Amino acid sequence: MSKKYAIGVDFGTESGRALLVDVATGEEVATSVHPYSNGVIDEKLPDSGVRLEPDWALQDPNDYIAVFKTAVPEVLRSGGVSPADVIGVGIDFTACTMLPVKADGTPLCNLPQFHSHPHAWVKLWKHHAAQPEANKINTTARKLDQKWLDRYGGKISSEWFFSKTLQILDEAPDIYQAADRLLEATDWVIWQLTGVETRNSCTAGYKALWSKREGFPEDAYFKALDPRLEHVIDQKMTRQITPIGQRAGGLTRQATEWTGLKAGTAVAIANVDAHVAVPAATVTEVGRMVMIMGTSICHMVLGAEEHLVPGICGYVEDGIIPGLFGYEAGQSCVGDHFAWFVENCVPAAYEREAEKRGISIHQMLEEKAARLKPGESGLLALDWWNGNRSVLVDVDLTGLLLGATLATKPEEIYRALIEATAYGTRVIVEAFENNGVPVKELVACGGLPEKNKLLMQIYADVTGRELKVTASKQTPALGSAMFGAVAAGKAAGGYASIFEAARYMSHLKDEVYKPVAEHTKVYDRLFAEYIQLHDYFGRGANDVMKRLKKIKAETI
Amino acid sequence: MSKKYAIGVDFGTESGRALLVDVATGEEVATSVHPYSNGVIDEKLPDSGVRLEPDWALQDPNDYIAVFKTAVPEVLRSGGVSPADVIGVGIDFTACTMLPVKADGTPLCNLPQFHSHPHAWVKLWKHHAAQPEANKINTTARKLDQKWLDRYGGKISSEWFFSKTLQILDEAPDIYQAADRLLEATDWVIWQLTGVETRNSCTAGYKALWSKREGFPEDAYFKALDPRLEHVIDQKMTRQITPIGQRAGGLTRQATEWTGLKAGTAVAIANVDAHVAVPAATVTEVGRMVMIMGTSICHMVLGAEEHLVPGICGYVEDGIIPGLFGYEAGQSCVGDHFAWFVENCVPAAYEREAEKRGISIHQMLEEKAARLKPGESGLLALDWWNGNRSVLVDVDLTGLLLGATLATKPEEIYRALIEATAYGTRVIVEAFENNGVPVKELVACGGLPEKNKLLMQIYADVTGRELKVTASKQTPALGSAMFGAVAAGKAAGGYASIFEAARYMSHLKDEVYKPVAEHTKVYDRLFAEYIQLHDYFGRGANDVMKRLKKIKAETI
Repeated sequence: MSKKYAIGVDFGTESGRALLVDVATGEEVATSVHPYSNGVIDEKLPDSGVRLEPDWALQDPNDYIAVFKTAVPEVLRSGGVSPADVIGVGIDFTACTMLPVKADGTPLCNLPQFHSHPHAWVKLWKHHAAQPEANKINTTARKLDQKWLDRYGGKISSEWFFSKTLQILDEAPDIYQAADRLLEATDWVIWQLTGVETRNSCTAGYKALWSKREGFPEDAYFKALDPRLEHVIDQKMTRQITPIGQRAGGLTRQATEWTGLKAGTAVAIANVDAHVAVPAATVTEVGRMVMIMGTSICHMVLGAEEHLVPGICGYVEDGIIPGLFGYEAGQSCVGDHFAWFVENCVPAAYEREAEKRGISIHQMLEEKAARLKPGESGLLALDWWNGNRSVLVDVDLTGLLLGATLATKPEEIYRALIEATAYGTRVIVEAFENNGVPVKELVACGGLPEKNKLLMQIYADVTGRELKVTASKQTPALGSAMFGAVAAGKAAGGYASIFEAARYMSHLKDEVYKPVAEHTKVYDRLFAEYIQLHDYFGRGANDVMKRLKKIKAETI
Repeated sequence: MSKKYAIGVDFGTESGRALLVDVATGEEVATSVHPYSNGVIDEKLPDSGVRLEPDWALQDPNDYIAVFKTAVPEVLRSGGVSPADVIGVGIDFTACTMLPVKADGTPLCNLPQFHSHPHAWVKLWKHHAAQPEANKINTTARKLDQKWLDRYGGKISSEWFFSKTLQILDEAPDIYQAADRLLEATDWVIWQLTGVETRNSCTAGYKALWSKREGFPEDAYFKALDPRLEHVIDQKMTRQITPIGQRAGGLTRQATEWTGLKAGTAVAIANVDAHVAVPAATVTEVGRMVMIMGTSICHMVLGAEEHLVPGICGYVEDGIIPGLFGYEAGQSCVGDHFAWFVENCVPAAYEREAEKRGISIHQMLEEKAARLKPGESGLLALDWWNGNRSVLVDVDLTGLLLGATLATKPEEIYRALIEATAYGTRVIVEAFENNGVPVKELVACGGLPEKNKLLMQIYADVTGRELKVTASKQTPALGSAMFGAVAAGKAAGGYASIFEAARYMSHLKDEVYKPVAEHTKVYDRLFAEYIQLHDYFGRGANDVMKRLKKIKAETI
């Protein structure tokens, strides 16, 4: 029997990536990236040139289809694989990335009468213009004592589904009116591939306030937000939510024309980039936390039971792995910290030294910082250069560096920033553990683990936990391919469940970062200092950071 | 009648400077700098090569005499002035810079049997090896409830006279025994010029615990420190202290050989560099604070009455201007901050830009920072990179920067550091005002005012006070010349008092930095935030800075 393959397609912010994977081993046979022609639309609309307001971020849904037309045929070609041997397709997406469509799935922006209307386009996850609507959603929820608010750490974000929906209604009631359906782009893409409209449990749970046991917030709540929104679920969405790991349908005739794949090829229910990376990081059980480490960190951990964990981003039953609660938390500034530091704070002498030695400045800083012992710099930082997501959920917090002297060197500041992000992760780990969600071990994926071994060791030392790294450098696409293999099912050469798929298709590197006892001892003391500052500045004892932001805002 | 002149000699850390001044106008006719051959001796003794321990800093008294042999003749020559027209000489010195000598004034280090003994040499102001002795002096003073401790903000320094004296006794009792006299180098130099041993009220008051009304601490206190020290005042010093502004004597025959000046030329009582700058900055009355701004700031203000001001360095009746109380406070890190920042935190791109534009990096940072409005950066710093002198008197405090975001630019940090030092000055100004010592206006001298107009404006805005700058760039030497003219007296063509001398010989620039009302309004709010952090980290609510230093110390 010939080898069987699955394809995962990962839709990022700037491009889509297709990955062709050997179902039996998880071997990554071929990959291809297709950059979106219209990229992130944040200044003016294509064609019409209509100007966007600040904080807007849109996309063109046709760019998603183009990924199937180019990147998928490309991996078949370069992998030398016959379409007959591809048994399943899965996708993952940024979220909440949503759009208004007609009943047949046509995006409103593709209709001539709406083409020059910003609200007719896809609102990208980082569209941040719906803050007033998010505020209204939060205050109304508190006023009506909505229990679901607790599932999201007590506050929902301007990035989420109903913030964006309410903004459309507020600013473009005609678009709201004209939209037969409002849905996540990830579900829309699956609809285009299969001809079947489905809604996945992951985005419904994490972004649209749905839960398996309680469904959506009641109509009365939506009515309180805006009377026109009372029946939004039944009019523009659906109450039928499909758990992650199911088959959505088979490829349509049109989709086979785009991709070159066979009609009827199994397609998995839609998924989200961060969440689909969890089984690709070998994690399908409780106790191991997956950290997707890049410019920011997304922390995900599975739990057998439902627990309220204050300050996390949310938890969803069936949200990551069917049958388990998927808990999500995050740090908003990690890799971004180091990029900021290198751009703004590294002296010319260091740049010259790195150049002379033929290494990158990041590499040289890591080398110099690695020579320092824990505690040796005398520095302590709060890693809030971009606010704090978990567990304080406060975008108005700002960065702090304490302990500088005239002898302080750049590599000491650099290391203090790394340590601060590690303390931030430890706060999250402890929040989970203190609230009934065990975290015994850490698994890292994303860009950072490849780049900075010192950072990995510091995370192990600070958290006192073993830290492992995924073998794949493209875990979201791999995870999507795994779900494709599950959608195909055992009979077709795939797997009966994501648990089984993970056993064969996902792998870790041999390298393990183990906590060094004498480092952990010092870091325990430094972490106690971090927590004291964290609570003093983050929990209201001294709101100086917010007052400075207010004064700053008044000067502009 | 021919023009009359006075010469001021300013003894710095690395060199001595002679300044020839027109007595009638204060015009600076000629100046000459003589670097000390042995400079700061902090590694090994000259000739013998005996190694010094860490924190030691010595000088060679013969280097002081060499200044009279070279720099004084040089100003006469280059100024084209006849020795007959020089009516007086004054000097000023670093302090406490002290040495052990024989009864005839011979420094012990000039005697063959002591030449290779470190304790026989001059201990420079920044000799920091007497901390254990300073601790003993402080704890003993508190135990014996010594009231004089309050005059020095509750704590005396390892740099001061009895710390150094006790170190000699502790570590080299033979040197202590062999020394007939222990005295400040500034008094020793006057002795060498005039043949008369005198002790000035400035160093006696600020460095040797003397006060006009109460004299020195009682013998019982010295006995409690060490029984051998019981009679130190009467055995090695004197209780006869001469107020600033008096004539010490006339130039000896030997001194005329060194200098080329006439025998009998009036010589003023010895003085200290910072304090002598006050009348040279036109200040001889209450209400105007003089700030000597360089790597650090020394703040001096005159008061008509005696007041305890917590956290200042000290106050001395007749210490600066006869008949008034001279109050002194300080900030330990000002110019040093900016030097640290430029060396460690300015990115290569900025260096390239400055180079391209042909300006210094300091100049470019000032230019960029000047474009920001108060409060615009959102940053706030505590200026404790080198501890805090006034008003917290705590070397173990460290620097803090708060409010950073991913958009924070180097010039914003640079400006925040300038602002932090201005807040530090405002704390001192308010400490004086709240305790009965008025400060209505500021007068700046030293290196910084010339270099950074933005800094000057920020100080005016933050303190809400007018800031003026001295016309002279060498205020200590000018002040010394002024006291030389006073020592000569009116009949000889000089002045009857320092008040009169200041009216004619000292000048301010026309330029005045006036507080801008809308800036001051914002800075008032930022200063309130500064104070809250200052007190939280500086007064014991959270001793994290000290704990970090302790952890750091344990790693070494």
